[in-house]
Amino acid sequence: MSLLVVGSVAFDSVKTPFGQVDEVLGGSATYFSTAASYFTDVSLVAVIGEDFPETHVEFLSSRGIDLEGLSRVPGRTFRWRGEYSYQLNEAKTLETQLNVFQEFSPTLPASYQDAEFVFLANIDPDLQRDVLSQVKSPKLVACDTMNFWIEGKRDALIETLKAVDILIINDGEARELAQEVNLVKVAKKIITLGPKTLVIKQGEYGALMFTQHSIFAAPAYPLEEVFDPTGAGDSFAGGFMGYLSKCGAVNDTNIRQAVIYGSTMASINVQAFSLDQMRNLTQKDIENRYQAFKALTFFDHY
Amino acid sequence: MSLLVVGSVAFDSVKTPFGQVDEVLGGSATYFSTAASYFTDVSLVAVIGEDFPETHVEFLSSRGIDLEGLSRVPGRTFRWRGEYSYQLNEAKTLETQLNVFQEFSPTLPASYQDAEFVFLANIDPDLQRDVLSQVKSPKLVACDTMNFWIEGKRDALIETLKAVDILIINDGEARELAQEVNLVKVAKKIITLGPKTLVIKQGEYGALMFTQHSIFAAPAYPLEEVFDPTGAGDSFAGGFMGYLSKCGAVNDTNIRQAVIYGSTMASINVQAFSLDQMRNLTQKDIENRYQAFKALTFFDHY
Repeated sequence: MSLLVVGSVAFDSVKTPFGQVDEVLGGSATYFSTAASYFTDVSLVAVIGEDFPETHVEFLSSRGIDLEGLSRVPGRTFRWRGEYSYQLNEAKTLETQLNVFQEFSPTLPASYQDAEFVFLANIDPDLQRDVLSQVKSPKLVACDTMNFWIEGKRDALIETLKAVDILIINDGEARELAQEVNLVKVAKKIITLGPKTLVIKQGEYGALMFTQHSIFAAPAYPLEEVFDPTGAGDSFAGGFMGYLSKCGAVNDTNIRQAVIYGSTMASINVQAFSLDQMRNLTQKDIENRYQAFKALTFFDHY
Repeated sequence: MSLLVVGSVAFDSVKTPFGQVDEVLGGSATYFSTAASYFTDVSLVAVIGEDFPETHVEFLSSRGIDLEGLSRVPGRTFRWRGEYSYQLNEAKTLETQLNVFQEFSPTLPASYQDAEFVFLANIDPDLQRDVLSQVKSPKLVACDTMNFWIEGKRDALIETLKAVDILIINDGEARELAQEVNLVKVAKKIITLGPKTLVIKQGEYGALMFTQHSIFAAPAYPLEEVFDPTGAGDSFAGGFMGYLSKCGAVNDTNIRQAVIYGSTMASINVQAFSLDQMRNLTQKDIENRYQAFKALTFFDHY
């Protein structure tokens, strides 16, 4: 199946306790599509400015990502600058320059309109709905969001959620959206808003997935070196949706496996700055980490 | 096998967002021995004052716990008072009255000296070693500790750890003991101090177990109502050690199952104040929660 993603392609400047990088390749759609490209065909919808180097476009293209929906317009590319303390679980945003992203209002190429799997990365909920409305008959729609939209455009977000099957957000955002502390209560409430499945990302503590009938808990992979958590959430979503798109249909078993493939890609991504660790993976690299998650969680399952 | 525990028997006064209780039955050895009593024979070593009601003694006795090592001395019983915010993951201690615990220096009854499984709950590390030295040939020794001893009696604690097989502590304590942030590095360091196995309790995020050869991650059970986290760590240790004592030997598979039985008892315990939820469990109650952990974590294990 083909998987469409709309989100940002950006330059990130990041400082962690282990080093810093300036204006490296980043953005939610970049991380998502790179991670997903190891599982399925991905079509990317995003905008870049005149300053975006051809080498980055070539990298995405080399991953087999369809870039017909990547438009280059006059102006500067979206930029984000942030830093992490030793805790590494939460980024402190130092600067956001929307630049060309400010006027982003994509028209989907005709070849994208038949996409069956859709991921609406963390962008304005009105824009998420606008893109989704251009997809003829989506089979599975997932989305991300953040506190900025939960606080600033709550009604628009609620409207978007009505058309979403799976919401993938972090624990703080989930609590803020549901206005509840307890995550079981949070999930019950969010499931009434539209998404039948809620995936709550908990950074170094892993992820929880709630459906109407079951709960699944996945740990994060315990790494000795976490270099840069930037993009972990989008890499997770990319592995998760990429695997579901590869399966072509969703059931209780493969959606749990999708959470582990998401965790696999996230855990690989954080081992280097930018998406450098995801540039040249083999299927064997991914499968080894997936098997390591089995070893990590096995106690009595057969 | 028989399991010996040394620790506190106390009165707890606890306030949570859901209510409060005054001078209810508490203490590390109380929670531990009650949880463990569902798996194995437990011998308790602790001290109480003249004010400790006979009904509490009768309850412990009704659980089949050997109380020959529970000494009643002149004075008041140990008291702890604390409260929890909505986050529920960390208690704020408001008051600690050591009372009769201050002079606690137990001589083990002859029948206790053949114990094969030993748990040294969170008490002065010198006292932990003193008790352990009275056990003739312990087969498996586990212990807990806390920041107070890590900071105040580090050398004594390091000495105790040399004789310990399994250290069971929370993540903040583990980081402080190892003076490292990353938990994989923390584990590598602690394993050089004596314990061949480190279990890190992470409250609502579950537990991680490190041995020299493997890592096991267990989630916490997602509960809709957590009434009172007091005693969760000791109930965990009780289920963990109780199950290992029941097995009679330790291998990589049953120690993982022990973590889940520990998590099972902790998740049951937090559903009511004091240890009320553990007073009248059936084997079926415990097995149902254990099976729920399987359902919670299964994705592709056979």
